[in-house]
Amino acid sequence: MALSKRTFWAFALLMPAAALAQSPAADIAQQGVGNTVPPCSSCHGPDGQGNPAAGFPRLAGLGSVYLQDQLDAYADGRRENAIMQPIASALSATQRRAMANYYSALAFKPSETNAPQQPISAAAVELAEHGRWDDAIPACVQCHGPGGMGVGDRFPALAGQSANYIASQLRAWRAHKRPAGPMDLMATIANRLDAADIMPVAEYFAAQPSTTAPATNKADDKANDSSTGSAKPAGTPNASGVQASTFVPPARGTIPDNEFGAMVRKGRAIFTDTQQHAARFVGNDLQCANCHLDEGRLADSSPLWAAWAMYPAYRGKNKHVNDFPERIQGCFRYSMNGTPPPRGDEVLLALETYAYWLASGAPVGKALSGRGYPELDAPRQSPSFERGAQVYTEHCALCHGSDGQGQRAADGRIAFPPLWGPRSYNWGAGMHRVNTAAAFIKANMPLGATTLSEQQAWDVAQFIGSHERPQDPRFTGSVADTAKQYHGKYSMYGQTVNGEVLGQNAPPSGTAPAAKTR
Amino acid sequence: MALSKRTFWAFALLMPAAALAQSPAADIAQQGVGNTVPPCSSCHGPDGQGNPAAGFPRLAGLGSVYLQDQLDAYADGRRENAIMQPIASALSATQRRAMANYYSALAFKPSETNAPQQPISAAAVELAEHGRWDDAIPACVQCHGPGGMGVGDRFPALAGQSANYIASQLRAWRAHKRPAGPMDLMATIANRLDAADIMPVAEYFAAQPSTTAPATNKADDKANDSSTGSAKPAGTPNASGVQASTFVPPARGTIPDNEFGAMVRKGRAIFTDTQQHAARFVGNDLQCANCHLDEGRLADSSPLWAAWAMYPAYRGKNKHVNDFPERIQGCFRYSMNGTPPPRGDEVLLALETYAYWLASGAPVGKALSGRGYPELDAPRQSPSFERGAQVYTEHCALCHGSDGQGQRAADGRIAFPPLWGPRSYNWGAGMHRVNTAAAFIKANMPLGATTLSEQQAWDVAQFIGSHERPQDPRFTGSVADTAKQYHGKYSMYGQTVNGEVLGQNAPPSGTAPAAKTR
Repeated sequence: MALSKRTFWAFALLMPAAALAQSPAADIAQQGVGNTVPPCSSCHGPDGQGNPAAGFPRLAGLGSVYLQDQLDAYADGRRENAIMQPIASALSATQRRAMANYYSALAFKPSETNAPQQPISAAAVELAEHGRWDDAIPACVQCHGPGGMGVGDRFPALAGQSANYIASQLRAWRAHKRPAGPMDLMATIANRLDAADIMPVAEYFAAQPSTTAPATNKADDKANDSSTGSAKPAGTPNASGVQASTFVPPARGTIPDNEFGAMVRKGRAIFTDTQQHAARFVGNDLQCANCHLDEGRLADSSPLWAAWAMYPAYRGKNKHVNDFPERIQGCFRYSMNGTPPPRGDEVLLALETYAYWLASGAPVGKALSGRGYPELDAPRQSPSFERGAQVYTEHCALCHGSDGQGQRAADGRIAFPPLWGPRSYNWGAGMHRVNTAAAFIKANMPLGATTLSEQQAWDVAQFIGSHERPQDPRFTGSVADTAKQYHGKYSMYGQTVNGEVLGQNAPPSGTAPAAKTR
Repeated sequence: MALSKRTFWAFALLMPAAALAQSPAADIAQQGVGNTVPPCSSCHGPDGQGNPAAGFPRLAGLGSVYLQDQLDAYADGRRENAIMQPIASALSATQRRAMANYYSALAFKPSETNAPQQPISAAAVELAEHGRWDDAIPACVQCHGPGGMGVGDRFPALAGQSANYIASQLRAWRAHKRPAGPMDLMATIANRLDAADIMPVAEYFAAQPSTTAPATNKADDKANDSSTGSAKPAGTPNASGVQASTFVPPARGTIPDNEFGAMVRKGRAIFTDTQQHAARFVGNDLQCANCHLDEGRLADSSPLWAAWAMYPAYRGKNKHVNDFPERIQGCFRYSMNGTPPPRGDEVLLALETYAYWLASGAPVGKALSGRGYPELDAPRQSPSFERGAQVYTEHCALCHGSDGQGQRAADGRIAFPPLWGPRSYNWGAGMHRVNTAAAFIKANMPLGATTLSEQQAWDVAQFIGSHERPQDPRFTGSVADTAKQYHGKYSMYGQTVNGEVLGQNAPPSGTAPAAKTR
């Protein structure tokens, strides 16, 4: 049942503030408070599931921090809404927190009524699940979790939400009628969308079940529209201002329907959900795609297509010529802090096949623009732990957590990877080097809002690289000796930070079994 | 000491024929016969080493069939030479054979006097050792053996031969003053040379020692001239009249001087002398380069560069996706009738690296023109063993031997591979299929004179494919069952030829150790 605006204002203006302050959250939700605050349930449903047809959003199961932020924003006018502004203003800050906690604790109940009126287009599926990197739009699910199931307190579930509500919020961001959100992320992204994207992508999420695996949408694999190529287009300056790659990997939808294509899909699945599909070789909470964004497709994010065409190659790291399978073994040993799949294992073959397919048409042995992470100039100021800590708090903690340990989606799957500690990459991984991390961060982070300066990237890389992490698998028994043999000037391994020698108390490498995540 | 023409004619006309017929070969060689036949040694030296300065050829150690052919050709005027014609005419056919045997049995003694007056150019080394496939010129050493040391009775040693003599003979072929040689091979090739090629390549061979490994000429690897690209050039119709590949692998001389380049060289060495560099994995007398001509560079000869860019790929042969190392393992198992190098073995890495380097610039995943062997149309007449036998005798036996068992160079190295029998590829190799062999033969054989019709190629492939060879490694215990499971319509395996079921008496597969060849 929807209330008309007029009826609502009649309530709101008649409510005595004193009565409201005493009401427990459940009472406010179900009965309202006098005439000032109508029962939340009248619009949001008896158990907070929302009213999709009327565009009243589901509240059940959304993050409490997020919900409180919204009530606070209504209360002080930053979020414009004629219905909610007077209600939120009538609640005390404490009450707003209580309401946020109340609704956050309610479980979402999937409903049949959210089924889309027409099939979701392949383009909308692509946008939701993979983003559109040509327009610097990351996948919605990258922050909102698989199927939009929500991640932590700050990334609300979209699954099962009212399509009209989602669409109206995207429009509100574009019209500056809603706070831009942490780090301006949602305002930035909403403004990069085309108007025509909005309703289809909203309907996609409305149709998703929550806290279960996202529905496999065959349109994803069948789509053959060229819009799904996702390398940065020719002529678009990348984050460093360099002309970005002109190579475009084949569109996601063009994986062939045959035995070869099945192996490509297997490789892609391993690459994007390594925890699940190569669990026995993984010793931490990372996925391949954490360091190789957009499923290994994105230029300047060590794209697989550029790597494939450059192997076999001599590597100073192990002082011999490595073929591609051996290179991947290195990723498992260091970046995944795990056990390298043995040669001949299907995990290697699948990843090889996926990389090969992504490289279709790339010239063998030519270093393509977009390869690796664009190297940064030496920092103007020596990278600083303290400045880095501030950058981290302001730009990284939202996703990776104030403790750097990442966040998981509602079903336990890893949504944001840990950046240090026992579940992150080890002291042998390339990313532990401050220059490599700085290059990655400058070109790619924060996701969808790569606005850090080079100095900020150096500083925050210094901060991240100054935390303990699993031991280097090449550990000789002595940190000093291992540092001398294997670590160069950009490594903090063996350095003393805050009174501790990094590496000295490192958790063992490669021994942590992959956590059971579902 | 050289005789002038005038002096010589004075001898020749005065010699009574009857006296000559009685002289043993050594007497003729050292003393001549009266005035008709001067001592051979007066021009060719006391032990047949020739007189390089005067252009009188070395005879010692050349094949007896070759030498007799030459004497016969002088005698009947097919080979023009004012000095030799009257001498050879004065000898009986029996005496000519005796002289051929006499000189063939003498050992060649390398001499310092053959050192070239100036350094051999990289282009001459390239021509001698690798040919110039743009002009359909195979390497000289392909038939004359490593370093020109000679192969069998029909391919005379060039090593240590008088440079002036070699050059004069190449010119004689161009001027039709010397018989074209078996299958017109030498006349054809001499006519494909540029006049400027002749003396440098002659000097190259004059400077080679005989029956030892050819001198390593650093110019080979250092040369950086673009002329060393050896794919058939764009616009040149290949043997089937199809426009050949436009892809050109990097020039031989451009292998970089670093660790990567060292691995490329290792792969090339394995590829061209598999017997020597991967002996433990080889069970027959073949080299990789036997089926992939010009070191895996030649279009329409299953060039490595085209293969590299097409893997990983699904193969019907083993019904799964194979990466390149696994594909090479297949070559060792079947074509080399050996033991596949285990994954991670440096032999695989080196071959991968060599193939990758050859493919520099090739587009990943695109089937390049020149890949594999150009498929033939179905034969107009059913391939015939009898017609094939005739083609074989006329066009193949010269090199591969009348028994199909190939030939070895003077130092025991394999010069021409066996085509059937226990030292050839086994019943699992692709080449055993008549269609594959026919395609290879049509495009590539006879080397340097690819003049067979499609029907002839089908017929001779049928003939070759109808001989016994090592068992299929997938042998199930029953020829009929193995044929049914693994062999298609183009295989003769399990067919009855001349009363024998092929495969029934096959030597075991993969068990023959590589023969010690030096």
